[in-house]
Amino acid sequence: MIIGAGFGGLAAAKALSSLPVDVTVVDARNHHTFQPLLYQVATAGLDAEDVCYPTRGVFHRQRNARVRMGQVTAIDTADRRVTLSDGGELHFDLLVVAAGAVTADFGVPGVVEHAHGLKSASDALAVRSSVLAWFEAADSDPDLVDAGALTTVIVGGGPTGVELAGGMAELIDRVLCRDHPSLDVDRARIVLVEAADRVLGSFSPRSSARARRALEKRGVELCLGRSVQTITKQRVVLDDGTIIAAGTVVWAAGVKANPLGAAIGTALDRTGRVVVGRDLAIPGHPEIFVIGDLAASPTGDGRPLPQVAPVAIQGGRHVAAAIAAQLDGRPPEAFVYRDRGSMATIGRNAAVVELHNGRTLSGWAGWVAWLGLHLVMLIGFRNRANVLVNWAWNYWTYDRGSRLILNGPAPSDRA
Amino acid sequence: MIIGAGFGGLAAAKALSSLPVDVTVVDARNHHTFQPLLYQVATAGLDAEDVCYPTRGVFHRQRNARVRMGQVTAIDTADRRVTLSDGGELHFDLLVVAAGAVTADFGVPGVVEHAHGLKSASDALAVRSSVLAWFEAADSDPDLVDAGALTTVIVGGGPTGVELAGGMAELIDRVLCRDHPSLDVDRARIVLVEAADRVLGSFSPRSSARARRALEKRGVELCLGRSVQTITKQRVVLDDGTIIAAGTVVWAAGVKANPLGAAIGTALDRTGRVVVGRDLAIPGHPEIFVIGDLAASPTGDGRPLPQVAPVAIQGGRHVAAAIAAQLDGRPPEAFVYRDRGSMATIGRNAAVVELHNGRTLSGWAGWVAWLGLHLVMLIGFRNRANVLVNWAWNYWTYDRGSRLILNGPAPSDRA
Repeated sequence: MIIGAGFGGLAAAKALSSLPVDVTVVDARNHHTFQPLLYQVATAGLDAEDVCYPTRGVFHRQRNARVRMGQVTAIDTADRRVTLSDGGELHFDLLVVAAGAVTADFGVPGVVEHAHGLKSASDALAVRSSVLAWFEAADSDPDLVDAGALTTVIVGGGPTGVELAGGMAELIDRVLCRDHPSLDVDRARIVLVEAADRVLGSFSPRSSARARRALEKRGVELCLGRSVQTITKQRVVLDDGTIIAAGTVVWAAGVKANPLGAAIGTALDRTGRVVVGRDLAIPGHPEIFVIGDLAASPTGDGRPLPQVAPVAIQGGRHVAAAIAAQLDGRPPEAFVYRDRGSMATIGRNAAVVELHNGRTLSGWAGWVAWLGLHLVMLIGFRNRANVLVNWAWNYWTYDRGSRLILNGPAPSDRA
Repeated sequence: MIIGAGFGGLAAAKALSSLPVDVTVVDARNHHTFQPLLYQVATAGLDAEDVCYPTRGVFHRQRNARVRMGQVTAIDTADRRVTLSDGGELHFDLLVVAAGAVTADFGVPGVVEHAHGLKSASDALAVRSSVLAWFEAADSDPDLVDAGALTTVIVGGGPTGVELAGGMAELIDRVLCRDHPSLDVDRARIVLVEAADRVLGSFSPRSSARARRALEKRGVELCLGRSVQTITKQRVVLDDGTIIAAGTVVWAAGVKANPLGAAIGTALDRTGRVVVGRDLAIPGHPEIFVIGDLAASPTGDGRPLPQVAPVAIQGGRHVAAAIAAQLDGRPPEAFVYRDRGSMATIGRNAAVVELHNGRTLSGWAGWVAWLGLHLVMLIGFRNRANVLVNWAWNYWTYDRGSRLILNGPAPSDRA
């Protein structure tokens, strides 16, 4: 049984296709979400359907796999059973927990009530609707501009925050200014708040500086070394007392382990991630593995592995190999994460790429590398073709066709 | 001022581009909806973004047009002013009311509470989520099949009902049966209820018979000559006492005039449509026009014009010409609807087409004609390209990439 249809869970399930095991993938949603591109859904560059793929479709040709939609609420390691929120109970012989991470508010008041996360397609559509609806509202009542209608505050200067800020700047500068000729769109603000003294803290200082320049060139206001004290309705208060009036607030400040990790009942590290051995199994339970964002580093050097897709994918494949070894009676090998590099895009023609061999790419070359890699990684030919059409359209026309308010203020069609 | 960004409103606004007038398009949504393809969104063949287009984007290059998002609640013909639900008031010199039609429940109890309409992208997404979520639920608990989990009842055998039934049959037979190998998908039912004794009542009896055969070939159950007495939770009761247990009920039985028509304060016909003169202006108010689904037939022969896109589009263009005539001091010409024919598709390789010269197409030829016409009519190159990608994908793979449950039972990503 595999809990989670994210990058790790799907990689494990696919790698198990040739083994004499029955695979059940359990996920609360009916689709895999390609989270690295959610920021493009939030900025109307892609449709939600472009970055999500039906989980059942992944396994049409894999005979030993089946899918169960449901949210796991409890894991009984002694009885080898999981309980679902719909009351279902499922038995397992081997378990892979790949439940990922959830948005962490770090105890800041108001995050849950007044800020959007960016972990699911629904989150991304909510951000899109909020920004567009505020522009519409300000178009009707320009006084709302003073109340922050055109301001978006993004909390967190990691890749998600940086990419969202860059995409939002392009949405506003290229599209919304043409959509709203009577609105003073120059007064639109994008404020990126980051507690550290540079963005992209996991990258080299040189890449951080490049990203910072690219953001500033696009008009993004950077609040570095500042943290958010509280968020209220249409207001973000920083630790130095600054109050920013903002129609839309996106909380991209960080994630924490899925609370399901605690349900396993084994040791957690201080961030809530599950402590695993070098084979990614939990201590004393060689039949239970934890991978991806939910697993604490098995390296023992205390440095947590980054919570990115490649770690999850490699973990999933490793677990399949470990299960194959168990079936053969061989001892499991130790998991070694091969870091091939990291990348973040700031928008049109701009990205920073750091390869594992120390080489870096930036600007247009980095951007093309970013486009290609994400296109290849997207599941499904149809999604790739649609993404290509949308990207080509966005690039040549500076337009964003997906700027629909579907969840926003819409009237009933019925009288 | 133009109320409504449907086919009629947009056609009028575009045709006014060369006249010395300022055009304001008011619509409750921020996008035009290509309603004839909503059934494909409901059956996971297209994305909502493929069949909707941002209204502001339509007018980027039209200097004399602007857009106001808002729902009109009152029209003051004496003061020439409309009131919006957000409190805004707008003055007009010339008014085109193109507010269209809304779902009519004909007084049947339970329609509003327990059935889905199919007039907006949100409606279509709700139908898609309902069908998919019921299949997931039955996959977990097969007892739900007896309770109608896999049954879809479609009320109304006009083009919308017929096209939806055909699309739903293909979704189930080609895709959902592969998604749910452990489910007895053969027990899935699609029931089409129509009060008349044939489907597609506005077509010739020969086309109706063809459509009926095509539907029956796809396993759709036809209940002709029956009407719905009441709809309760997961239950449809027909006038002969038959009770159908159904997870999803779609009400495509008909539309009525938008109640905004009554707000004009002039004569209505018995279906609520606004009585207009031969120039499409209301009696005594040459500055107020009503077009499309909301306008009663101006022909005077008592036969209402069909509530289809071509009538609205031709009406919109006629009104622009009538306004040009007014500005020139010429008398308005009478509106003449040129019926070029009608078409409905039943699914893959099957459609019925009736041309104005009496010729008919059916089967594959009809289907190709249907595809081409709808592709040409879709606004925007991007939408056309995406639709083409999705249609090609669906056709060659028998897959439906958009089967995501986005509005359905999804948990919070936050702990």
